[in-house]
Amino acid sequence: MLKAKIFVQLKPSVLDPQGKAVTNSLHHLGFDKAVQTRISKYIEITFDSTDKAEISAQTTQICEKLLANPNTESYHFEVEESES
Amino acid sequence: MLKAKIFVQLKPSVLDPQGKAVTNSLHHLGFDKAVQTRISKYIEITFDSTDKAEISAQTTQICEKLLANPNTESYHFEVEESES
Repeated sequence: MLKAKIFVQLKPSVLDPQGKAVTNSLHHLGFDKAVQTRISKYIEITFDSTDKAEISAQTTQICEKLLANPNTESYHFEVEESES
Repeated sequence: MLKAKIFVQLKPSVLDPQGKAVTNSLHHLGFDKAVQTRISKYIEITFDSTDKAEISAQTTQICEKLLANPNTESYHFEVEESES
């Protein structure tokens, strides 16, 4: 089994209103040293395969076709061996 | 500046319908080696501080009071030096 560990993040130039809301909440809760919050997706996909090169190529396609919005988001990932 | 890198994930025993939907989509797109998908939140909080111990303690409180639902989610994080 292989596991792809994928981060899909808003591009730095894109406003993150959910992150801004968390920063505001933190200030209301007294955590006044918090300056900025960015919220991203972390996705793990388990594959029934041992071919790392093939699964890496598939994961790139999966990010581009399904998981990331190329207009506003960037992605990066690693493919690792997995027991389950 | 310090940056807390926080993962908030559904507990393994909790059903992830969004992840299941992604797995189904992958099969429809022909990625039939995908077995399971789990979708989590990845949150980066930047703090105006250099006191790692204090910020680690605050991040634990932030996860428990704001970011994670203790009934269904677990969290883990690292605090690292950050330039911005």
